[in-house]
Amino acid sequence: MLRLYNAKILMPDMSIENGEIVIDNGIITYVGDIRREFEYTQEIDIDKNLVMPGFKNLHTHSAMTFLRSYAEDLPLDRWLNEKIFPAEDRLTEEDAYYCCILAIMEYLTSGITTCFDMYFYPDAMARASVDTGFRTVLSGTLNNFKESLDILKYNYNKYNNFDPLVSYKLGFHAEYTTDIELLKGLAELSHKLNASVSAHVCETENEVTECIKRHGKTPVEFFSDLGLSDIPKGIYHHCVWLTDRDIDILKKHDITVVTNGGSNCKLASGIAPLERLDKANIRLALGTDSAASNNCLDMFREMWLATALQKQQTQNAAAFPAKKVLMAATSNGAEALGIDAADISVGRMADLTVIDMHRPNMQPENDVINNLVYSGSKENVLMTIVDGKILYERNKGFNIGFDEKEIYAKIADIADRILR
Amino acid sequence: MLRLYNAKILMPDMSIENGEIVIDNGIITYVGDIRREFEYTQEIDIDKNLVMPGFKNLHTHSAMTFLRSYAEDLPLDRWLNEKIFPAEDRLTEEDAYYCCILAIMEYLTSGITTCFDMYFYPDAMARASVDTGFRTVLSGTLNNFKESLDILKYNYNKYNNFDPLVSYKLGFHAEYTTDIELLKGLAELSHKLNASVSAHVCETENEVTECIKRHGKTPVEFFSDLGLSDIPKGIYHHCVWLTDRDIDILKKHDITVVTNGGSNCKLASGIAPLERLDKANIRLALGTDSAASNNCLDMFREMWLATALQKQQTQNAAAFPAKKVLMAATSNGAEALGIDAADISVGRMADLTVIDMHRPNMQPENDVINNLVYSGSKENVLMTIVDGKILYERNKGFNIGFDEKEIYAKIADIADRILR
Repeated sequence: MLRLYNAKILMPDMSIENGEIVIDNGIITYVGDIRREFEYTQEIDIDKNLVMPGFKNLHTHSAMTFLRSYAEDLPLDRWLNEKIFPAEDRLTEEDAYYCCILAIMEYLTSGITTCFDMYFYPDAMARASVDTGFRTVLSGTLNNFKESLDILKYNYNKYNNFDPLVSYKLGFHAEYTTDIELLKGLAELSHKLNASVSAHVCETENEVTECIKRHGKTPVEFFSDLGLSDIPKGIYHHCVWLTDRDIDILKKHDITVVTNGGSNCKLASGIAPLERLDKANIRLALGTDSAASNNCLDMFREMWLATALQKQQTQNAAAFPAKKVLMAATSNGAEALGIDAADISVGRMADLTVIDMHRPNMQPENDVINNLVYSGSKENVLMTIVDGKILYERNKGFNIGFDEKEIYAKIADIADRILR
Repeated sequence: MLRLYNAKILMPDMSIENGEIVIDNGIITYVGDIRREFEYTQEIDIDKNLVMPGFKNLHTHSAMTFLRSYAEDLPLDRWLNEKIFPAEDRLTEEDAYYCCILAIMEYLTSGITTCFDMYFYPDAMARASVDTGFRTVLSGTLNNFKESLDILKYNYNKYNNFDPLVSYKLGFHAEYTTDIELLKGLAELSHKLNASVSAHVCETENEVTECIKRHGKTPVEFFSDLGLSDIPKGIYHHCVWLTDRDIDILKKHDITVVTNGGSNCKLASGIAPLERLDKANIRLALGTDSAASNNCLDMFREMWLATALQKQQTQNAAAFPAKKVLMAATSNGAEALGIDAADISVGRMADLTVIDMHRPNMQPENDVINNLVYSGSKENVLMTIVDGKILYERNKGFNIGFDEKEIYAKIADIADRILR
C-alpha cells in the first residue's frame, strides 16, 4: 500500500482539499484526512504539493517521435505526402517500439498517464505500454494503404484481450484516405461489435471542401449517413471546420471532440470552435497529436492553447476558462475512453500526477487551478503514477525498465538510418 | 575563470558547434575547440548539452507577480480598471521589491538573463536586480497618474548611474493614459538627452480607434508627429493593430517591435503581424508581459507562440520559422536594448543558458534549433548564467542570496494582504 500524505488534492468537483491518498494494488482506496491505521509499504510526504488525476492525451501517434523537428514549415498535405509518408515507409515495427518508449517517457514528464494512440503498428505501442507500465487505448486506423478491415477486426480482438493496461477502439484514418467501401464495412463491423468509431475529422478546410465535392456532404454528415456514428461515443480528432449541422450530429451521437491546438496552429489548419462545442454540450478532450506536427507531447501547452486560442478567436477573454480546460484534459478524456481514472475518488484506478507548487511560476497561490492551466509547465511535474506505480520522478528519473540514454541512442540510430 | 567544456554551442550565425567557452570576470574570453593552457577556478562538463545566449525578455512588469491568477477571463479595459489598478494602489515599494525577486527567479528558470522592465516602482526592480545579480533595463512609464516628467528625468539619471547590471530608457505607459502635454514634454526630453522612447503601442483595436477619434491619427502616427520617435531605436510593445503606414514609420525610426503572444491571446487582444513586420525588416523581439496577464514568465511559451500564431494567422505553415524566432528571443532583444550580450562570441558579456538536450522532448536531434523552439520547455533549462555567475541550476536551485521558500512565503503574505 502506497500512502501519499500532506498533499493538496484536486477533488472531482475541482475543489482543492488538504489530505492524503492511499493506493492499493493500483486502486485508490482512501482519500481524505490523515489516518494512521494501516501498514504502508511506502509513504511519501507530498509537501503540500498538488496531487491530481493524470492527464489523458486523447490524440497522438506515439511512434512518430523519430520525426520530431525533421519536416518543418510545410502545410498539412505537402508535409504528409512529401515528408512524413515516405519516412514512415522505412520505419520497422521494432523501430516503432522504441519510438513509442521515447513517447511514453515524454508523456510521463508531462504528467500524462494515458494516451489514445493511432498508428499502423499497434503492437509497438501495446508492447511498449505493457513493458513500461503505461496505459494506452489503441485506435484503429483503417485506410486504403496500411490497414484493412480484416486487420482492424483482428486488432480489436487481440488488444481488447491483451493486458489490463491496453484496450482498443475501432477507428479509421480519415475520409480522404479511406474509400467508401471500407467505411461501409467499418459501419457494419461497428454495429456487429456494438463498438464506436474514431477518426481524424474536419482537420483542414480543404478536407471538408473535397469531401463535399466527392460526396455532397461534410465529413461529419457523410460518416453519420454511413452509420459510422450509430454506436455512441465515437472520438473525433481536430474538428476545426464544423457547420452547425455537424455540431448537432456530434451531440446526437455523443461524440467526443478532441482538440489539438498545438498541431492545428503549427500546420496552419485553423482553430477548433471549442466555445461553440461547449455551449452545445459536446464532450471536449485534449490531444497533443504527434511529435512530427506539434512538436512536443506536452499537455501543459495544450491546456494553455485550448483556452488562449478560444479567447483569441472569439475575441472574448472569458472564453473556455481554466476549470473547463482542466476537465477536458483529465475527466472528459477518461470518460471518452471508458477508463476508470476520471478523478481522485475511492475505487478509481490510481493514475496520478504530482505537481510541484513550490516553483516561481506557481506562486502565489491566488488560484491553484488558474496557476496550473495558465502558468503550469513540465518543470512542475514532480511525479507521474500509472496503475499505482511511480513511473517518473523529476529528481530520480524514469522507472520504466529502460535506461534513458540508451533509448536516446536507439532513436538517434533510427532517425539516422531513416532520415539521412 | 569559469570553463564550460564538452558543450554544443549556439554560434552567432545560428549554427551549432562542439567546443568550450571560457568566462573571465563576466566576459566571454574564449569560444572554440578544447584547450588546456589556463588555470580555471571552476570547470563544468556540459555533457554535450547546448550553451546558448540567455533569453532577453523585452517586455515585462516584474512586480506584478503577486497578481498571478488573481483576475482571469476579463477583457483588457475591465481587467485593468476593475482589478489590476485598484490592487496596484495597495502595493508598497517594499512589496514590489519581493515581487520582483519572485519574477527574477521565474526568469532564471526559463533561461532569461535580461529583462526590459516597466513599472512605477523602478527602484524595486533595480535593487532586486543588483541584489540577485540579474540584468535589467528599466523603462520609464510616464503617465497621468503615477509618473511625471520630473520623476522620469530623475530616474533616467539615477538608474543610468546605478550599477553595471542596471540601465534605464525613456518611456511612457500608453497613449490612452498619457496626456498630450506630457508627451510633448517627453519628446523634448528625448531630443535633449538624445534618448529613444518606448511605450505600449496599438495593443488593442479599441486603443487605435479611440486614438483616431481623439487625434485623427493612429498611435504610431501620433507619436511620430509629436517627435517621440525622432531618436531612433525606441521599443514599442504589442503592435497588434498596425496600418501599412504605421509599419513604414516604425521602419523609418528603427523602432523595435516586441510581441507578446501569450498576453495578447489571453486578453483577446489579437495577433501581431510578425510576418508583415519581418518582411518590412523591422527588428522583432519577444516579451512575456506580466504574470497578471500571461500568466507565466516563460520565453519557451513566447517562442512557440510567436511562430505558431503567425502560421495560424497567415494560414501559412512556413511563416516566421524557428531561426527567426530564436534571433528575436536572443540577439534582437540585446541589440534593441543596447546591451553587449547578443550572442556567444569573445568580448561579449557572459549571459548564458544551458539547455538539457538529454530529455525526451529534445530527442532525436534532427534539428537542434527546431527542437529548442518547437519542443523546448522550462524542464530543459539546466543552468542560467548572468554576468558570468551561475544564478540558477535545475538540480541545485537558486544562487541569488535569498531562500526560495522564504520568498514564496513573503509573496503569499503580500497577496493575502492586498487581494483578500
